[in-house]
Amino acid sequence: MNSLLINNISSLEMVLPKEKLQLKGEEMANYKSIEQSYLLIENGKIAAYGKQSDAPERADKVIDASGKFVLPGWCDSHTHLVFAASRETEFIDKIKGLSYEEIAANGGGILNSAKRLSNATEDELFNSALYRLSEISATGTTSVEIKSGYGLSVDAELKMLRVIKRLKENTTLNIKATFLGAHAFPESYKNNRDGYVQLIIDEMIPKVADEGLADFIDVFCDKGFFTPEQTAKIFEAGIKHNLIPKLHANELGETGGIEVGVAYGARSVDHLEHTSAEHIELLKQSNTTPTLLPSTAFFLRLPYAPARKMIDAGLGVALATDYNPGSSPSGNMPFVLSLACIYMRMLPKEAIAAATINGAFAMGLEQSCGSISIGKRADILITKPIENIAVLPYYFGSNYVETVISNGNIISQNKE
Amino acid sequence: MNSLLINNISSLEMVLPKEKLQLKGEEMANYKSIEQSYLLIENGKIAAYGKQSDAPERADKVIDASGKFVLPGWCDSHTHLVFAASRETEFIDKIKGLSYEEIAANGGGILNSAKRLSNATEDELFNSALYRLSEISATGTTSVEIKSGYGLSVDAELKMLRVIKRLKENTTLNIKATFLGAHAFPESYKNNRDGYVQLIIDEMIPKVADEGLADFIDVFCDKGFFTPEQTAKIFEAGIKHNLIPKLHANELGETGGIEVGVAYGARSVDHLEHTSAEHIELLKQSNTTPTLLPSTAFFLRLPYAPARKMIDAGLGVALATDYNPGSSPSGNMPFVLSLACIYMRMLPKEAIAAATINGAFAMGLEQSCGSISIGKRADILITKPIENIAVLPYYFGSNYVETVISNGNIISQNKE
Repeated sequence: MNSLLINNISSLEMVLPKEKLQLKGEEMANYKSIEQSYLLIENGKIAAYGKQSDAPERADKVIDASGKFVLPGWCDSHTHLVFAASRETEFIDKIKGLSYEEIAANGGGILNSAKRLSNATEDELFNSALYRLSEISATGTTSVEIKSGYGLSVDAELKMLRVIKRLKENTTLNIKATFLGAHAFPESYKNNRDGYVQLIIDEMIPKVADEGLADFIDVFCDKGFFTPEQTAKIFEAGIKHNLIPKLHANELGETGGIEVGVAYGARSVDHLEHTSAEHIELLKQSNTTPTLLPSTAFFLRLPYAPARKMIDAGLGVALATDYNPGSSPSGNMPFVLSLACIYMRMLPKEAIAAATINGAFAMGLEQSCGSISIGKRADILITKPIENIAVLPYYFGSNYVETVISNGNIISQNKE
Repeated sequence: MNSLLINNISSLEMVLPKEKLQLKGEEMANYKSIEQSYLLIENGKIAAYGKQSDAPERADKVIDASGKFVLPGWCDSHTHLVFAASRETEFIDKIKGLSYEEIAANGGGILNSAKRLSNATEDELFNSALYRLSEISATGTTSVEIKSGYGLSVDAELKMLRVIKRLKENTTLNIKATFLGAHAFPESYKNNRDGYVQLIIDEMIPKVADEGLADFIDVFCDKGFFTPEQTAKIFEAGIKHNLIPKLHANELGETGGIEVGVAYGARSVDHLEHTSAEHIELLKQSNTTPTLLPSTAFFLRLPYAPARKMIDAGLGVALATDYNPGSSPSGNMPFVLSLACIYMRMLPKEAIAAATINGAFAMGLEQSCGSISIGKRADILITKPIENIAVLPYYFGSNYVETVISNGNIISQNKE
């Protein structure tokens, strides 16, 4: 038995009974915290917690957290962090005012990432993604979903998913894999879009399923990308192979993404910058989590998704980074919390619920992490000394995450 | 003689002849860079630089910068980083939609900072500010201006300035001090604003000058704060005591701030969210540097200052953080560069010029730092391995600054 005791915690946040699997509406700002508390970890799991006066007397290792807050590690449920090259030259084109179409004509966009990826080896992809995982764990992320989607061919999609599998095997982070062959239409199918959909259904999905490479299936269902009809076909094929739907929807317009996501029982619909009152009503009748990605709105200067309206309507919102080289070159979850508070008017506690238990739910990890609950994985972050949890989103340019624990092991220590 | 040699630099940026003291208009994006180069530091100064093939053979210490870029350290010419307490509870009030007036009525705003500061000891202020200096140096800042202005009484203003003096004596950072007694009207003078102006002129300025506590004198000349007439009086008194004017202007409206700043030869006019074409013309006829603070616009959801128009008109713009607990709780200069590129459409090279040589000029340090020039202070940052300088603003949530050198000494090393 291996035990780690965290003592004198100023405030232990997001304490939930284990059967509570997500937080909705007013619950998001009203989760339980315990001041002056301890947390005991045994064999990588949360074994006990409570008031400091009830703490056990000994453990293999003891950390003093005086003045510090303890939270579940962030659950970042939407990333594309396996990619071959950053796209900072497109960034300069954007600053110069080139349109999306002009940038694409210059070789930019998702197809640029696909081209660069096809030239990269699995080792190169693995090593750069491993660096990004170490970077995001330093700001507190302990669970992360990673998508394919820069392959856009049978071989390249499988290559990406194998890299994700190798990442799972080589870190203690909790990783979920999503097959996103339907991220864009490759050049060779630009006049035969349904042909590409058929390739996904006939070849990609069976191979991905055979090798057990993905947990989820995702589609970019939006203006200029996949239609709801194409999305439905892909979901049906995926579901037959036990892949659970997730969806990119309503980022660029209202083309029926949320509707098809809900119809197929998607675990989450993500982006949602364009969401109406009717969509919110529809989501309320479903088990689908609206997942908001404010870093993308920030970087592309888009309107932000209506988080306030969603929460006020009783929905359980999740927050994620969308880490990718084109529209959100950042995997920094504390910065996502800052954007959520400043630009989407989420309260700090709501943002924390969205980035922990609701993020876990959005990627099917709600039974194993995302809250301080007995028996869950000990995925924990300890802040620097702070007086109020609002410090995390308030100091938007700082990293107030000091220690990160994944599956009971300390994986990051930030000391100034 | 103490020498430090940096070898194999992928690109040495912002190389200027020593007599070039600022960059204006098109110059900002076209400064000289040297690829595959070395930089030699002797006794804390830049002693030589050039192509790697011409590098000296030995030095006391050698750093290999293969794949890395080398720049002058950031010159952050506008901060209020001596303060007693963060204001994250006001942050929650703002999220809840309370107006500026309601927050002030709840005890918020500058007067809240003043109250908290009056209860803090000099040691407490010194220690918290020293922590903030270590934090900003980890993201590459090597020169910084710090203002008083949370005192608003003779004693408390002097207390703040003494803390800044102590910071100067206890770090290797290049620090400039600014007296900002005219930051707000204290409660006791709310019905006698001219009386407070007279207190500044009759008591504060002479004492500040006697103790040699400040280099600059600043006024918050804006809607609801100090008028241009009051500003003029304060500047005249300051100039008599050899304090050089700087100015907070045109953040909340157009009330004549830029005009009075230019009329009194201010070194810089800062904020400028509300700036017209006529103001730009006026600045062109002056030696006053427009200093933009995009973190404040970001945090308060204000419109951004028209940097693009200013640079296109031929002005030399500076960028700074405005680090303060109310409107910009961040001293992160790389994030300021990101905002400048994403929201003000500045090119990465323009943002770098604005954050180095032009920032140095805005605080009277252009002779001693802000560029790679022979004889200047060796205030240097070395990036992580990158392919393009645009990586710095592009990865908006990451710190790509690896090593920071101040006055020839390594003061920060970030390793993942």
